[in-house]
Amino acid sequence: MKSDDDGRTPSLAVSYADVQAAARLLEGKAHRTPVLTSRTVDGRTGARVFFKCENLQRGGAFKFRGAYNAMANLGADEKLRGVVAYSSGNHAQAVALAGSMLGISATIVMPSDAPQVKVDATRGYGAEVVPYDRARDDRAAIAAKLAHERGVTLIPPFDHQHIVAGQGTAAYELFEETGPLDVLLVPCGGGGLLTGCAIAAAVLSPGIRTIGVEPAAGDDVRRSFHSGVIQSVHNPDTIADGARTSAPGAITFPLIMHYVADVLTVDDSELLRTMWYLWERLKIIVEPTGALGAAALLENKLDVRGGRVGVILSGGNADLKHLARLL
Amino acid sequence: MKSDDDGRTPSLAVSYADVQAAARLLEGKAHRTPVLTSRTVDGRTGARVFFKCENLQRGGAFKFRGAYNAMANLGADEKLRGVVAYSSGNHAQAVALAGSMLGISATIVMPSDAPQVKVDATRGYGAEVVPYDRARDDRAAIAAKLAHERGVTLIPPFDHQHIVAGQGTAAYELFEETGPLDVLLVPCGGGGLLTGCAIAAAVLSPGIRTIGVEPAAGDDVRRSFHSGVIQSVHNPDTIADGARTSAPGAITFPLIMHYVADVLTVDDSELLRTMWYLWERLKIIVEPTGALGAAALLENKLDVRGGRVGVILSGGNADLKHLARLL
Repeated sequence: MKSDDDGRTPSLAVSYADVQAAARLLEGKAHRTPVLTSRTVDGRTGARVFFKCENLQRGGAFKFRGAYNAMANLGADEKLRGVVAYSSGNHAQAVALAGSMLGISATIVMPSDAPQVKVDATRGYGAEVVPYDRARDDRAAIAAKLAHERGVTLIPPFDHQHIVAGQGTAAYELFEETGPLDVLLVPCGGGGLLTGCAIAAAVLSPGIRTIGVEPAAGDDVRRSFHSGVIQSVHNPDTIADGARTSAPGAITFPLIMHYVADVLTVDDSELLRTMWYLWERLKIIVEPTGALGAAALLENKLDVRGGRVGVILSGGNADLKHLARLL
Repeated sequence: MKSDDDGRTPSLAVSYADVQAAARLLEGKAHRTPVLTSRTVDGRTGARVFFKCENLQRGGAFKFRGAYNAMANLGADEKLRGVVAYSSGNHAQAVALAGSMLGISATIVMPSDAPQVKVDATRGYGAEVVPYDRARDDRAAIAAKLAHERGVTLIPPFDHQHIVAGQGTAAYELFEETGPLDVLLVPCGGGGLLTGCAIAAAVLSPGIRTIGVEPAAGDDVRRSFHSGVIQSVHNPDTIADGARTSAPGAITFPLIMHYVADVLTVDDSELLRTMWYLWERLKIIVEPTGALGAAALLENKLDVRGGRVGVILSGGNADLKHLARLL
């Protein structure tokens, strides 16, 4: 199902050829994560469902794909000076881990209330962590200041050609295993994973509907998608901490408008039910943000009966003690 | 690394050829479960570790392999009359699931205090459940009586040629992916999984040490192994409910003596720590019995530094609400 056509649309910053290049670069570096199926899920949904388990990716989330791709593409001089990133968690770990593999020093600007398991993992990979106050500080400004002062390169969490292309390799691998699908459900924060996957899907599974799924409290992408103008939210209150992003980006928004069929939302109680279901039935830990796509499916937000459905489970870095209390 | 030699030793009931036959029969029926690796685990143990994830198998445990293999090998008349099985849980689900796939009616004798998730799953696959009192009743006798009265075939939980051969396909697949290893750690109840895997290992990874791991409170196989005579325990008090088996069997014991290098034990607190670690770091749910092999590794029960180590994670049917309270 692969096409030689590179699928580049002139006004868009990322093409299918970029995803292909990222797939080559990530081979043997990222885990080729398993695709799980479940008769129980198929019975419940009336569809044939394929879960791409990026919760089992290095660093516990898809974010490693984009971070490694972006950092491996830096010039020799940039690699030597190091990088800085801001992140609510998984991008932080991803940049730290990619840095440790590529020999690039990393500084991470993280919210002071980020899950401890994510802070520990980031430090564990050898990165320096600079905390900020989520309610008061502008993390992008802090990171930009650090980048300027230290002469290091900023690795943004999603709005970047190589980040988007790297994330798209998750769907690229999924289609290699499943062939064409009818629907692809993708968690959506700033739209890096969503657009990368949508670009791969458009070539590898023509006619597919790639659908982004956001937390209801942080529906900036849904509103942007339906209005055609970038809309934002401020510090949304949701357990999906990886999708608290305020708005889609200058690179991801045009890609969303071009490639994405729809954007759906689920609320926190739907996310919790879905996580519990995935834990009990699929025997895998999925974090709240990682369960967004699965929640849209299992909470019947769209009609998939008779179809073949891909679901990206994007991460597994849950604070289990906290979630055990909620559940 | 495969050998044409069938590896059969005259006095033993199961050969490598039986495992090969089971592998052919299970192709496309059992999930080919993923093999996960973790830099964190490698760093902690000083070894290269490969986790074979039978917790992600159909029915949530390796038991499906043996049950399907045994039931598919029944004669046409036996298939028509149906089967009965006794089980603390995962074998029950496996026989029920294999029955639903093969069109064989199944009756399961289950302890009245089995985890509710396992009882529900067994009924969900269409089997009839007959409860018994673990402290008072003899489940084997109840099942034998049912088999006699109804004219159905008893599918024992481990002490059976086709059960052992089926379970061995877990290791068979692991070696196909990893090549030879130095050590293989396998959870041990009655020894069906352990011996099946040890038979595969002896041919596919010559010189490997295949090691069984039991709960300390139910160390019948360890004592049998070291004394050379079958020893038993009565209703041991351990959270590893799949390894409360009273003694190795007439078929498995000689295989253990022939193929197994050692038998180790871990206690319940070591199992709990290990389960939690696997949940947090590998993002997978492993039940107490399923974590026996991993616990021996992570709690330093043997020296594996510099080696290549396989670990069978045998099941994931944990009662999460109960375990969340323990953790």
